[in-house]
Amino acid sequence: MTTLQATSPADAGDAIQCTPDGRLRHLLSLRSLPRELLFDILDRAERFLADTSEPAVRSTTLAGRTIANLFFEPSTRTRASFELAAKRLSADVLNLDVSTSSRIKGESILDTMYTLQAMQCDVFVVRDAAAGVPRMIAHAVRDGVAILNAGEASVSHPTQGLLDLLTIRRARPDLESLKVCIVGDIAHSRVARSAAEALTIAGISELRLVAPKALQPEASAFPGATLHSDLASGVAEADVVMALRIQRERIDDAGDIPDPSDYARRFGLSAANLAPASPNVLVMHPGPMNRGIEIDDATADSARSLITEQVRNGVAVRMALLEMVTETHLGLRR
Amino acid sequence: MTTLQATSPADAGDAIQCTPDGRLRHLLSLRSLPRELLFDILDRAERFLADTSEPAVRSTTLAGRTIANLFFEPSTRTRASFELAAKRLSADVLNLDVSTSSRIKGESILDTMYTLQAMQCDVFVVRDAAAGVPRMIAHAVRDGVAILNAGEASVSHPTQGLLDLLTIRRARPDLESLKVCIVGDIAHSRVARSAAEALTIAGISELRLVAPKALQPEASAFPGATLHSDLASGVAEADVVMALRIQRERIDDAGDIPDPSDYARRFGLSAANLAPASPNVLVMHPGPMNRGIEIDDATADSARSLITEQVRNGVAVRMALLEMVTETHLGLRR
Amino acid sequence: MTTLQATSPADAGDAIQCTPDGRLRHLLSLRSLPRELLFDILDRAERFLADTSEPAVRSTTLAGRTIANLFFEPSTRTRASFELAAKRLSADVLNLDVSTSSRIKGESILDTMYTLQAMQCDVFVVRDAAAGVPRMIAHAVRDGVAILNAGEASVSHPTQGLLDLLTIRRARPDLESLKVCIVGDIAHSRVARSAAEALTIAGISELRLVAPKALQPEASAFPGATLHSDLASGVAEADVVMALRIQRERIDDAGDIPDPSDYARRFGLSAANLAPASPNVLVMHPGPMNRGIEIDDATADSARSLITEQVRNGVAVRMALLEMVTETHLGLRR
Repeated sequence: MTTLQATSPADAGDAIQCTPDGRLRHLLSLRSLPRELLFDILDRAERFLADTSEPAVRSTTLAGRTIANLFFEPSTRTRASFELAAKRLSADVLNLDVSTSSRIKGESILDTMYTLQAMQCDVFVVRDAAAGVPRMIAHAVRDGVAILNAGEASVSHPTQGLLDLLTIRRARPDLESLKVCIVGDIAHSRVARSAAEALTIAGISELRLVAPKALQPEASAFPGATLHSDLASGVAEADVVMALRIQRERIDDAGDIPDPSDYARRFGLSAANLAPASPNVLVMHPGPMNRGIEIDDATADSARSLITEQVRNGVAVRMALLEMVTETHLGLRR
Repeated sequence: MTTLQATSPADAGDAIQCTPDGRLRHLLSLRSLPRELLFDILDRAERFLADTSEPAVRSTTLAGRTIANLFFEPSTRTRASFELAAKRLSADVLNLDVSTSSRIKGESILDTMYTLQAMQCDVFVVRDAAAGVPRMIAHAVRDGVAILNAGEASVSHPTQGLLDLLTIRRARPDLESLKVCIVGDIAHSRVARSAAEALTIAGISELRLVAPKALQPEASAFPGATLHSDLASGVAEADVVMALRIQRERIDDAGDIPDPSDYARRFGLSAANLAPASPNVLVMHPGPMNRGIEIDDATADSARSLITEQVRNGVAVRMALLEMVTETHLGLRR
Repeated sequence: MTTLQATSPADAGDAIQCTPDGRLRHLLSLRSLPRELLFDILDRAERFLADTSEPAVRSTTLAGRTIANLFFEPSTRTRASFELAAKRLSADVLNLDVSTSSRIKGESILDTMYTLQAMQCDVFVVRDAAAGVPRMIAHAVRDGVAILNAGEASVSHPTQGLLDLLTIRRARPDLESLKVCIVGDIAHSRVARSAAEALTIAGISELRLVAPKALQPEASAFPGATLHSDLASGVAEADVVMALRIQRERIDDAGDIPDPSDYARRFGLSAANLAPASPNVLVMHPGPMNRGIEIDDATADSARSLITEQVRNGVAVRMALLEMVTETHLGLRR
């Protein structure tokens, strides 16, 4: 077990992400998000959660607004979640699968964005395989236009971090007493980074990271977390265990890709492997799941699984964010 | 000419498809659909048919609902028809071309469906190249969520069967006196199977199937129909003749793919080949047509052609189904 | 410098494009569009232009109508512009990326269109790589259905020509005194052809075309324009200079593709190359830009650049056209 140390100070505020009076202008990263604003987002999201026996909650607050889904990396789930969030607020949605259109005949990302800005899109939901793209776009757009980061390289996936925190808070409001363990390819996971940021700001008791040696992160990436190379020590008395997907597409050295059955035995979530955890342990997975590898069927489908709750909360978090940034920019326009 | 015998009893009721009080919960197959319910669907569809000189009929009965088009096999026409049906009922539509996204990074079909269910999609329109998928999904969804089969392997395509029956009924309300002939690759055709099921339940006088030897179906698939290997005997005195598309992609043995000009001469719909039919014979084709093979231009574009009527009625049938299953599940939710 | 002569008379009226009383029925080409109608379209478009600090202008005039984007050639920008135009008029939009679906299993273009017409689509927005397709479709549709040409081979791109003219008129209402210069691959450019047609009808003072020898057009294509093979003579005292994109995909002979750095030096828009122009010269580009080739960064992003205005005006022009053809067909239906 190693305790990771921060090697650089956390961003001291983030002038591009928040207005001087603390309102959310763009969502680029959770790292420097004020604790109060983080909880404001979750509280707003709660309003959009209906009972599953009811139809989805709808509102007309974004009627007449245009949300552009600008995905430079393929996505089905996250794109669908943002699309439904926008439609349930009555916005118009423009889907641009830029991954398949070879970056619009060689155009630069910024020119694509300037073009869509000229078409009066109000919010850009951006996913890109390169680090820094959402922030670069946020610096370039005019007042009145908001950027939401929908996945950025291995760096961050802030809406996922928010939905993970919301899911945990709804199940265990005693956040400050929780031991949370994240298991898997931590080195390449933007999901792990954003979850860790959200959980750290929320003030959980302990964050543990479990990964095979080849997939362990750099020490600086997870300040305050403890790093484990065996599952048993990581999940010991844990209240929440979150499995990550093995992302072969991001592992450069093929020799580092774990053997699936060996991985399942050593790191897969199963009743046996979770035995050292709290008897009430909750399990999570960002999806899509490789069943039988990161998690077995019995665990994924058990009463302790929050996996479908995560998906449901994702739409609500995205509705909250779309509404909040639109309100902020309405103020900026005046 | 051979008369095909049923080798297994028809499904005795279909508890997953209908509620105990006989309302439509999912549409998986026409085979066991009660006759009264079949006609209820057609009657409901008639309400959505406007004169072609009028704009499309619209309603707000599905406002706030989400329809997910989940196409694991590519489709343009059927997907467009369902999309327009949903939009004209004011529903939100989510198109998921899962055929091009490699099944969402290896996720199982059921996990994809559980994910969309968690996003509060209300109806799944499902097309898959494997038999049994729509029924498998219908067994897995929770009350409040409906499945509509939009094409299942070579097994069934029930919305096509309904629109074919509706098209025939509007042109010839005297269903019980009709001789109907289906010509083409019967062996691989889900369109033929669903049309046969609809026509059989509706009680037509005679159903004939015409196919080259290599493309004839198993005896059990079309109970009560007669099988012909020459067109002349199949169309003799027929009131309606429906041509099928040659589907090279489903014929395993390349030697079984008919030579186009030979096929056109022996099985193609043309004035000469239709001479033995009733003088008022009507012709149909599910589209997309290979003109000059299954049907010649003069016949496709003649006054006896119901081909564009089929397309038009398809939207109306899908509007009716979307409305009916939503009403049923509204009842189940309470 | 050569003055190009018309070798054929301009189309004497265009009975398919306009009704006998001069209303716009389809938009196929600008060539024969009456001057008054051309300006009516621009005037109508002006109504849809809001200040960029305001949300996009919306109306409900197309509620209940269906706009089908039928793109047989890939497009992201033009498709997005039409999609937003339609949605901001409250129409339903059906996107059919026929370029990726192998022309709907071998179906002819006309059968695809008849199918969508039967589904009660009201307007078809058509892009095709073959000349004559929009006009062929316009001849085939029934009254009540309108065609808008969204790009036709190297022949025409009339909505682009209209937005270019609108952009120039808003910046320089003194159209009749203007010298306009178009620079680039004139031979293969539908943008150049439609811009030239719009500018000619609008009655500008002078139209100059600048292209490397290998990319110069046939003499008949640009009646009244002057042709230059060096930039300096083309831009001399020009009020507006429009750069075109080098379209490698349309140049048959690879030897004709200019070397990028040589092209930039000789034909690229830059402060140095624009020195002979009017001191108030305005620059345009239809996008997507190859920065550093057709135009340098400083020029593209300068105060003299109208490039984002072009994009913004494009949505307004398309809203105007959608509204006008729908009104015309409403009249035809009665």
